[in-house]
Amino acid sequence: MDLNEDIISEILNGNNRIIAHAISLIENNDNHAKSLLSSIYPSTGKAHRIGITGPPGAGKSSITNALIEILTNEDKSIAVIGVDPSSPFSHGAFLGDRVRMMKHHDKKNVFIRSMASRGSSGGLARKSHEVADIFDAAGFDFIIFETVGVGQIELDVMNVTDTVVVVLVPESGDDIQMMKAGLMEIADIFIINKADRMGVNSLYSSLQQTISLINKENNNWKIPIQKTTATKMQGIYELRKLIDNHHTFLNENNEIKIKSNQRYSLAVKKLISELSNKIFWKQKNNNKLKTELLKTVKNRMSPYELAEKLFEKGPQ
Amino acid sequence: MDLNEDIISEILNGNNRIIAHAISLIENNDNHAKSLLSSIYPSTGKAHRIGITGPPGAGKSSITNALIEILTNEDKSIAVIGVDPSSPFSHGAFLGDRVRMMKHHDKKNVFIRSMASRGSSGGLARKSHEVADIFDAAGFDFIIFETVGVGQIELDVMNVTDTVVVVLVPESGDDIQMMKAGLMEIADIFIINKADRMGVNSLYSSLQQTISLINKENNNWKIPIQKTTATKMQGIYELRKLIDNHHTFLNENNEIKIKSNQRYSLAVKKLISELSNKIFWKQKNNNKLKTELLKTVKNRMSPYELAEKLFEKGPQ
Repeated sequence: MDLNEDIISEILNGNNRIIAHAISLIENNDNHAKSLLSSIYPSTGKAHRIGITGPPGAGKSSITNALIEILTNEDKSIAVIGVDPSSPFSHGAFLGDRVRMMKHHDKKNVFIRSMASRGSSGGLARKSHEVADIFDAAGFDFIIFETVGVGQIELDVMNVTDTVVVVLVPESGDDIQMMKAGLMEIADIFIINKADRMGVNSLYSSLQQTISLINKENNNWKIPIQKTTATKMQGIYELRKLIDNHHTFLNENNEIKIKSNQRYSLAVKKLISELSNKIFWKQKNNNKLKTELLKTVKNRMSPYELAEKLFEKGPQ
Repeated sequence: MDLNEDIISEILNGNNRIIAHAISLIENNDNHAKSLLSSIYPSTGKAHRIGITGPPGAGKSSITNALIEILTNEDKSIAVIGVDPSSPFSHGAFLGDRVRMMKHHDKKNVFIRSMASRGSSGGLARKSHEVADIFDAAGFDFIIFETVGVGQIELDVMNVTDTVVVVLVPESGDDIQMMKAGLMEIADIFIINKADRMGVNSLYSSLQQTISLINKENNNWKIPIQKTTATKMQGIYELRKLIDNHHTFLNENNEIKIKSNQRYSLAVKKLISELSNKIFWKQKNNNKLKTELLKTVKNRMSPYELAEKLFEKGPQ
């Protein structure tokens, strides 16, 4: 297929095979990826980008599954991007959960894709939103980002979604208490999943306390807490309604535009940074670094001295 | 205190108050941090840097606690750096575990410090090794990096330690199975903690299988699996011995030097990248970005076009 014009019109038409191809180009840092993304960019900005995050074992995949169930019944189209920075393997990463999700795979309007680090650090958060741009341009109504862990990359992914759903469970231990610190501040909606278990009420009140502190800074949106038992579809219709409410809130307060601008700024800055690094580390600078590495720690320039010295001379 | 000469000699003397001050300079991106790190750099390279990682709830802190117990009895000095990328708060981050660790705080040769993201993404992995350089120059025998999560930053931290200990527990669920993918490849030593529980044997054999695949590429080091019950000090002396064995192996195979060179290269590259970004985003380029943001998504340049255009003109 002749690249670009054909590919682009097929993406805009929602051709799933071509969409999958475009995603692979992004994942593989293919040269065509950027011009492709550039061409479809003006057609983005319509999808509602939802982030689903929380500690391991909270049931993020079950929540996603349940949401797909409801949204497809409403005739909406949904793309799911599973982000797994901890795994260097793609596709295989989410296998356990993805297999469970397969029951939706035959539905025409559901597209599920896992993304992992593939050994290279960096870029995963950006790439996940580039893939979302493809889905967005292709006309998907909802794009759900689901994460495995709760590290910095996950926060980077979540930070530029429109609506962040944080899933917690009653049996949160010490580690999870700690991790919550990072999640608390990005939540637009809290879910207490597995709400048929012990400890729901104490988690509920501790969340209420946290929210009362957060809300002060968070203008008019009152962060709701929804109890769910995703595997039994309990509380999911209510969650669907809350997501809708938040979207309305965002539209009425210009926040959709602010989020989209944040994504734009971040993308430009990352691209500049990558271009700068690429041009800086040419043969001469690389050789100077290697020469320094041949010396002992005691006799070499400190990294700070070397960086300053190289930077003064510029890319070479 | 007159900066630099005094500070540096106090660090090299192991003055804990001044060490704490130096760490704060690093955490706060203080202007003096780099010249300080530059001055102490030649005195680094003696400490054994150990990473302790694993999924939440595996008992990483208990293992660290138990190791401190044994190492202090050997009259060794130990610095612990708790790395928590998921939390924007420092100090408070590790609170739960740190309180448990306090029993070691009165010991003269133990220094415990938590580091978190403080809202700014990026830099945490680098900073944790800068803090380690301070401890290293101050003469600490062991530097233990303990992480909370299992995301990319944690992998970045672990990748440049000398010895990586991966802690797992028998009751690993689906999520943890997934996360293991990233951990498997960096492990030098596996621990099965809480080894008095059900499921130890099946985890043990699945680990053995994984190791048999990894070892092929991993020259001569045979990755051991140690069962522990850290809270009862079971298996900890054996772990201590394994850490020692690995250190001997590294020394005999020049790997200590390779690791230290990796840290050096990474530091230089990060510093160059930061300098480039700083110089690029001056008033004129910032204004051009802002102008573009005022337009609608449909009418603005794509991020790729804008980045290319700005990059062509260079920093301004």
